[in-house]
Amino acid sequence: MYSYSQCFDIIERELSQISLANKPKELFEPIRYALSIGGKRIRPCLALMAHSLFSDTIETVIKPAMGLEVFHNFTLLHDDIMDKAELRRNHQTVHMKWNQNTAILSGDAMMILAYDLISDTAVKVLPDILTLFGQTALEVCEGQQLDMNFERSEYISEAEYLEMIRLKTAVLLGASMALGGITGGTSKENIDRLYNVGLYTGMAFQLQDDYMDVFANEKSFGKKIGGDIHANKKTYLMISALNSSDQQQIDLLKTWLRKEDFTSEEKIKAVTQIYLKLEVDKKCRELAGKYFNMGIDQLSQLTIEQTRIAELKSFLLSIKDRKR
Amino acid sequence: MYSYSQCFDIIERELSQISLANKPKELFEPIRYALSIGGKRIRPCLALMAHSLFSDTIETVIKPAMGLEVFHNFTLLHDDIMDKAELRRNHQTVHMKWNQNTAILSGDAMMILAYDLISDTAVKVLPDILTLFGQTALEVCEGQQLDMNFERSEYISEAEYLEMIRLKTAVLLGASMALGGITGGTSKENIDRLYNVGLYTGMAFQLQDDYMDVFANEKSFGKKIGGDIHANKKTYLMISALNSSDQQQIDLLKTWLRKEDFTSEEKIKAVTQIYLKLEVDKKCRELAGKYFNMGIDQLSQLTIEQTRIAELKSFLLSIKDRKR
Repeated sequence: MYSYSQCFDIIERELSQISLANKPKELFEPIRYALSIGGKRIRPCLALMAHSLFSDTIETVIKPAMGLEVFHNFTLLHDDIMDKAELRRNHQTVHMKWNQNTAILSGDAMMILAYDLISDTAVKVLPDILTLFGQTALEVCEGQQLDMNFERSEYISEAEYLEMIRLKTAVLLGASMALGGITGGTSKENIDRLYNVGLYTGMAFQLQDDYMDVFANEKSFGKKIGGDIHANKKTYLMISALNSSDQQQIDLLKTWLRKEDFTSEEKIKAVTQIYLKLEVDKKCRELAGKYFNMGIDQLSQLTIEQTRIAELKSFLLSIKDRKR
Repeated sequence: MYSYSQCFDIIERELSQISLANKPKELFEPIRYALSIGGKRIRPCLALMAHSLFSDTIETVIKPAMGLEVFHNFTLLHDDIMDKAELRRNHQTVHMKWNQNTAILSGDAMMILAYDLISDTAVKVLPDILTLFGQTALEVCEGQQLDMNFERSEYISEAEYLEMIRLKTAVLLGASMALGGITGGTSKENIDRLYNVGLYTGMAFQLQDDYMDVFANEKSFGKKIGGDIHANKKTYLMISALNSSDQQQIDLLKTWLRKEDFTSEEKIKAVTQIYLKLEVDKKCRELAGKYFNMGIDQLSQLTIEQTRIAELKSFLLSIKDRKR
């Protein structure tokens, strides 16, 4: 079994050696850039770790796992255009560093590259992997569309929000785990369980993101607290607060959402107070915890010697306790 | 063997029955729209016709052939954003009818859909088809990048232009023919010849497009003559004229390229005169004819009973004589 840090090193090494044409440079330089600015590489690491539950050689999983990471970075690249984001992982986004057309086209090329990698595996698992990946990739697009729709929506229910993050974030983590199960050659039942491990962990991960953006320790978090509040982003905290039964706090919150003349600090402080008053912080943390536990429960239900799940379990617990 | 019109009907029927989710409608309506506004469906028809040279059942080719058409329409959708095009086949482009974000994301979903279709075939041909398609799709992106680079270039050689249209247009026609050969189960040598049939026909087709935009009969052409001249588009005619040895005509042409105060008719008439004077019309038509003949020659070299190539040959000749 591989640990997360072993997987991370393997993925970083493979990504740095990825075979890309040089010309036209306007097409390929942004791809190299997007793949080089880091991130936790969680998706390919989950695939490798899941695979290594069942198999000690990683040949058949390594390329498809990288395909997941390239696909993920492709979605970030195009999402950043759509969201007009200027920074990603403290680096300029591709459409800012180059221009929008470059970002569209390099993104397209990245998706093709992702499929090349996804397909670079044993023929016998190819149809299953392509079906899983195709369905997942489309769901991620649906999630991004819902997220954009939410920006223009007056009312969003908690259920709608959870469905959006399921599609936009969680299914790709589910697919990453399932992919490892497919290449590792385990049973249909175990593959479904692995998918759920990833799916639930993905739900938890996103809820945790929402929580940490307001309530993390700024120093260990590594970036400014309250960015989501400042940008009126519809997070679980915001939606949950707007769906509460305390009309007074809702009105206060809506005032802040509409306000144009304020300092960032004032607004973050005021909205945070509303969150605390309505206890949506607690609710968010508890829901994240519930999803984490559901993931770990699915992991323990794998029909496999329980000693083999130790590395994965410890990795999931480390995500649960993450500070950034 | 299937005729083009038989293939066209099959493709239209299959495309109209394509299985797409309904929600979120912002994502899927533009895809339905883009697939419904027509076109000649040349790529899937070439795939079906090539396949039917070797096999009388079309089961294994139909879905991948549709994948080629969906991919082609995806590239048009994203290219139209990059080129700020307002119309496509006399209909509003997706980014105009909806908005840019919708066009980016629906395009992404279309590429995923294309891969789903490409992969929906017999497992034994799957790796070859994916390799062919992945390479081709990346080349199409390279071609689009070169085309965009050309807009900002002072000097482009004829060789550079031909390489651009090879990548942007011809390779996908090559891949369409080759795909039919792969699913039809023919030899590596025949697949290569089929690829060349499509590649050369694609080169000819694009050169013919450049020619017809200036010299077609407006009535049978079905759209305004001279659009490329009006927009200063770098076509084969323009590049060939700028590469001629007649400095006087080149200077005159450059004056028109820089001019801002003119009527469209004046400019089209003047530039057309320069083309005629330099005989780049003749050169363009001859080069297109040469590529058409190279394609037909490759077709005749297939190791197959010559009676079987009749339908394809007559289709290629009909493209050669097209009026629109």
